[in-house]
Amino acid sequence: MTKQEIIDNIRRKKSFLCVGLDTDLKKIPPHLLNEEDPIFAFNKAIIDATAPYCVAYKPNLAFYECFGLKGWAAFEKTVNYIRQNYPDQFIIADAKRGDIGNTSAMYARALFEELDVDAITVAPYMGEDSVKPFLGYPGKWVILLALTSNPGSADFQNVESADGEKLFERVLRRSQDWAGDDQMMYVVGATRGRAFEDVRKIAPNNFLLVPGVGAQGGSLADVCQYGMTADCGLLVNSSRGIIYADNTPAFAEAAGRAAAELQQEMAALLVD
Amino acid sequence: MTKQEIIDNIRRKKSFLCVGLDTDLKKIPPHLLNEEDPIFAFNKAIIDATAPYCVAYKPNLAFYECFGLKGWAAFEKTVNYIRQNYPDQFIIADAKRGDIGNTSAMYARALFEELDVDAITVAPYMGEDSVKPFLGYPGKWVILLALTSNPGSADFQNVESADGEKLFERVLRRSQDWAGDDQMMYVVGATRGRAFEDVRKIAPNNFLLVPGVGAQGGSLADVCQYGMTADCGLLVNSSRGIIYADNTPAFAEAAGRAAAELQQEMAALLVD
Repeated sequence: MTKQEIIDNIRRKKSFLCVGLDTDLKKIPPHLLNEEDPIFAFNKAIIDATAPYCVAYKPNLAFYECFGLKGWAAFEKTVNYIRQNYPDQFIIADAKRGDIGNTSAMYARALFEELDVDAITVAPYMGEDSVKPFLGYPGKWVILLALTSNPGSADFQNVESADGEKLFERVLRRSQDWAGDDQMMYVVGATRGRAFEDVRKIAPNNFLLVPGVGAQGGSLADVCQYGMTADCGLLVNSSRGIIYADNTPAFAEAAGRAAAELQQEMAALLVD
Repeated sequence: MTKQEIIDNIRRKKSFLCVGLDTDLKKIPPHLLNEEDPIFAFNKAIIDATAPYCVAYKPNLAFYECFGLKGWAAFEKTVNYIRQNYPDQFIIADAKRGDIGNTSAMYARALFEELDVDAITVAPYMGEDSVKPFLGYPGKWVILLALTSNPGSADFQNVESADGEKLFERVLRRSQDWAGDDQMMYVVGATRGRAFEDVRKIAPNNFLLVPGVGAQGGSLADVCQYGMTADCGLLVNSSRGIIYADNTPAFAEAAGRAAAELQQEMAALLVD
């Protein structure tokens, strides 16, 4: 999917919402456990209920891999279901991969060729040659971890180098040379507030994938105030607040309502 | 597996060799492609041929995930085959995972509970709370990326902070507080030469997993000179140099010979 297509989808739907499909068997409505594939049954209902209000889905691979073969099958079915029924949705495999070049190439093949996701989250620690293999697919995206939403992000991401540059700033600056804003996005946690200003100094035009609104305490208004561009430039993710809005057989309707509420907030915050 | 058991295995076998099972359908002997599960057929033969000469196996998950369901099945079969037939082998899932706490917990469950691997490689970029969930399993290990063998490692790992500490040194130092040397190892590339001295100043007693001997150009003698401890303290990995030593139906014997050669070198370098 091209950057312009993402922007067009955001304008048309007045939403920059990404729904995180962090599907946990311990949290889904108990009646679904009788289904042949409870994870996929849950995802399918959530997707059908939320698709009008979002522009992206982000299954986190950890939640699928933890069930081995069955989990991987549920992941594949979920990606294929979105692709076939909602072709305008941007699909992010939240994998946080990153390995030596030939190994990253295998991951890229798995997710961009075997499956047909639009984007993969990648960890930057191993540097350029661990990220480059993901960039060989036109229309496919790397979403590089920059400043994450968790408390531990301070351990390394905020460390200042001798020349006054924080590690996350170095990640942003170096990676600007690896790909343009038509292939590279960054993860910046919603809990980071004014740090979005620092991000925008280095990456003025890249889309940012923003987790941490909702359960993690980030403010949508702050994210927009400090991080939004003329093209929106944001995909704001919510997982638990939407998909676990309700635990009864009416869970999907509740998820739809939660997504619609966020979409309404987003519509009000979007620059015309 | 406890640290003492690893040390005992190394002394008994006079080997600190880890065989990397980076099994690529494009590189395995063509006659195996007729097997029902070519990846597992290859791994099984490699394992049987090399087990006398090594103390650990390291399947890299990328090489399995790129084949989706079939790949994941081959990974599970490989882990189970080693566990059942060679219970003294240390099994490392080379996954380079690391995510927010609840997600890392899912990965830990996948690899330590659903499967029975001994160790997982973890990326440090997201900090303490992304690593901790892997440390809740007694006898199971985290192998944290510190100084990797690839060229891109210089992009961030060698960046000096304002107080003169390189990022990989900070990763080593901070993580010393997260777990003892009975649960924490570090990845340090064989191509790093004297940097092993810097590593040992901060992590004198931790085992190091050392990739990069062979195809990537690292020197086993240098690694031992600068990185070995009284307890050995090293697991040196070789992947391509062993598993692709030969491409004919005699591939397994050739792999066994390549592993035996490295074991002989290691026996000579081991401190009594």
